[in-house]
Amino acid sequence: MSPTLDEVRALDAADPLRAFAAEFDIPPGVIYLDGNSLGPPTRAAIARLQQTSGNEWRRGLIRSWNDAGWIDLPLRTGAKIARLIGAAEDEVIVCDSVSVNLYKLATALIARAPGKSLVVESAEFPTDQYVLEGVARMTGAKLHRLAGDEPPPDDAGVVVKSLVNYKSAEIRDMAECEREAGKRNYDIIWDLSHATGLVAFNVKNAGANYAVGCGYKFLNGGPGAPAFIYVARNRSGQLAQPVSGWMGHAAPFDFSSQYAPAPGVQRFAAGTPPILSLAALDAALDLFDGVDIMLVEQKARALGDLFLEMTRNLGLGALQPPARRGGHACLRSADGGAIMQALIARGVIGDFRAPDFMRFGFSPLFLSYEDVWRAAEVLADVLSTEEWRRPEFSLRRKVT
Amino acid sequence: MSPTLDEVRALDAADPLRAFAAEFDIPPGVIYLDGNSLGPPTRAAIARLQQTSGNEWRRGLIRSWNDAGWIDLPLRTGAKIARLIGAAEDEVIVCDSVSVNLYKLATALIARAPGKSLVVESAEFPTDQYVLEGVARMTGAKLHRLAGDEPPPDDAGVVVKSLVNYKSAEIRDMAECEREAGKRNYDIIWDLSHATGLVAFNVKNAGANYAVGCGYKFLNGGPGAPAFIYVARNRSGQLAQPVSGWMGHAAPFDFSSQYAPAPGVQRFAAGTPPILSLAALDAALDLFDGVDIMLVEQKARALGDLFLEMTRNLGLGALQPPARRGGHACLRSADGGAIMQALIARGVIGDFRAPDFMRFGFSPLFLSYEDVWRAAEVLADVLSTEEWRRPEFSLRRKVT
Repeated sequence: MSPTLDEVRALDAADPLRAFAAEFDIPPGVIYLDGNSLGPPTRAAIARLQQTSGNEWRRGLIRSWNDAGWIDLPLRTGAKIARLIGAAEDEVIVCDSVSVNLYKLATALIARAPGKSLVVESAEFPTDQYVLEGVARMTGAKLHRLAGDEPPPDDAGVVVKSLVNYKSAEIRDMAECEREAGKRNYDIIWDLSHATGLVAFNVKNAGANYAVGCGYKFLNGGPGAPAFIYVARNRSGQLAQPVSGWMGHAAPFDFSSQYAPAPGVQRFAAGTPPILSLAALDAALDLFDGVDIMLVEQKARALGDLFLEMTRNLGLGALQPPARRGGHACLRSADGGAIMQALIARGVIGDFRAPDFMRFGFSPLFLSYEDVWRAAEVLADVLSTEEWRRPEFSLRRKVT
Repeated sequence: MSPTLDEVRALDAADPLRAFAAEFDIPPGVIYLDGNSLGPPTRAAIARLQQTSGNEWRRGLIRSWNDAGWIDLPLRTGAKIARLIGAAEDEVIVCDSVSVNLYKLATALIARAPGKSLVVESAEFPTDQYVLEGVARMTGAKLHRLAGDEPPPDDAGVVVKSLVNYKSAEIRDMAECEREAGKRNYDIIWDLSHATGLVAFNVKNAGANYAVGCGYKFLNGGPGAPAFIYVARNRSGQLAQPVSGWMGHAAPFDFSSQYAPAPGVQRFAAGTPPILSLAALDAALDLFDGVDIMLVEQKARALGDLFLEMTRNLGLGALQPPARRGGHACLRSADGGAIMQALIARGVIGDFRAPDFMRFGFSPLFLSYEDVWRAAEVLADVLSTEEWRRPEFSLRRKVT
């Protein structure tokens, strides 16, 4: 049976993470169930942008590359992410986008495995598949797309895998996947986009050596925030990444003519980093200082369970719930696009993924149980009143 | 003979560009001669960042991808740059960094010229050389580095060339280079980083089909602002860029498994763009609405001439002045690093490029003749008093 409002308020009162919501500034009337797509800004991130633009850029000008530490920001921000994923602080750098980082890393790895193939699941986030097509074309390696639970083929060299699937929210067992990869002698590049800042995992404990991930979902780094790349320290020195730009040079300000890669993960940087976007991400990450991610993961699942329980009898399809679910859940309906528009018009913001997935994210650091309870009530109302049939909700939007 | 203060004030009074300085907010006591490295913010760019972060991100949240037009921003900002370089509005996209864009474009072009080589001058900006090393390694193409005025070799396939050299400030004759390229059957990728927003040129009139450039120099887009890429409309459909991410897909939100490139220059996009940095650049570009770039180029040269004239007898070396000079000029001294630090301490901000180049930029939209006159006076004073010998100025800085 669905809980009452009093019951969910009791859950909020007992929630060890409840204080974090004050770090955000969600607009009144909004229940934001899309932090898995674009995290909302923390107050600190907004303040930092003002500092970086109005003070460091405007007053410090070029001097801020040194005086405000812009030049080291990709590694300093990377160190904050390293703590969240269980890497050493000098094994993560923030740069470029997930697509570009995956290209650099997959290309560097497959170059060391001649004759072997690239592998990706067909249920993987599309850009990861697209990028591997490009890597395959450039390097001549074959690309295998795996259906369902199919294991990688015998010639697998580099396998790209999301720790949390963007649609099903299934969490993979990182350590088990790495054991299998070790036995069968292929490398895994983990896409941590939907996992970082939400799921408890540790790349070292799991034996993972390579990963990429984005900054704008549960890390709340801002729209299109720069991405990150993790390479285990004992591996980075062996890898030649193809986009050999000056920020990955061992001594970029010597202005020598010959490329010489930086010793560690810094070599995966390429061009000048977008400091304004990077500064917002850097500030957003301070939210996670001292947070127990296991509590975050548990609350995300509890919020999702509450939502799924309350919406179970609304006549919508659901995905087969995975054994271990990340920070979002999907409901299915052929009318999902219109229903989602109607929800958004009522202030309940999720997103829609073609062909029929309504996706709801349960970010534990700014959402309360009461928020999720209210969102489920709104969904029930939108369906029972058939409000979603209003013509303005059937307009196709570019991004939903 | 050096002009008097009254004489330069008369030049300012007659300057058709003098009103633009009010669009900036240069700190009191600073004469900023480094807009060629990092342009200062316009008031509009600072305001736009507040709008984009505090309103679009904070209040609009995910909806802003549509409602605030974030999804089209790379092309809309590209259209503003297109007007500055003489391209059609749909031939330029803003994305990634110069390094990444050069990698994508050079790789796509050399793939169509099997057996031909990549070519770059050894005086070219280092990152362009480094990136071509990576492209050569990936594609198997040879890389030729040209010394001085050496012409490209007979097997040249793709030549990378700056329109304005980062050190000498020499402006190349784009049309003549393109005629030569046509005769000898190679493609030129122009690096427009030091030219755009400062030098009058027109890619169409010159017959140029391919270019990259940065957003943070004379375009004032902010530290590490996203870069741009120009591909002539009749060429883009033939090019397969290697970093085939979802933002370059013909229909990214269909979430299909197979990559299908967008028809035009959009295919050169890869991952999700850093919206905060991009918005600042977009706002900064409005400064150029209706500006006659020929006036900008002329004033830059006049400011540089004034500075070189006033510093001619200070015992510093100068580069052989090129026939046509861009927006900066260099003075040389073995003690240049310390002299530049002493200048910066006095509020005259330029930069230093190893081994002995003091580089001064003459951005015409915020500098007056009086500013430059005063900067030259300060340099003369720093040298005559030997102020630069103070120990704090000999510290090596990471970026100068």
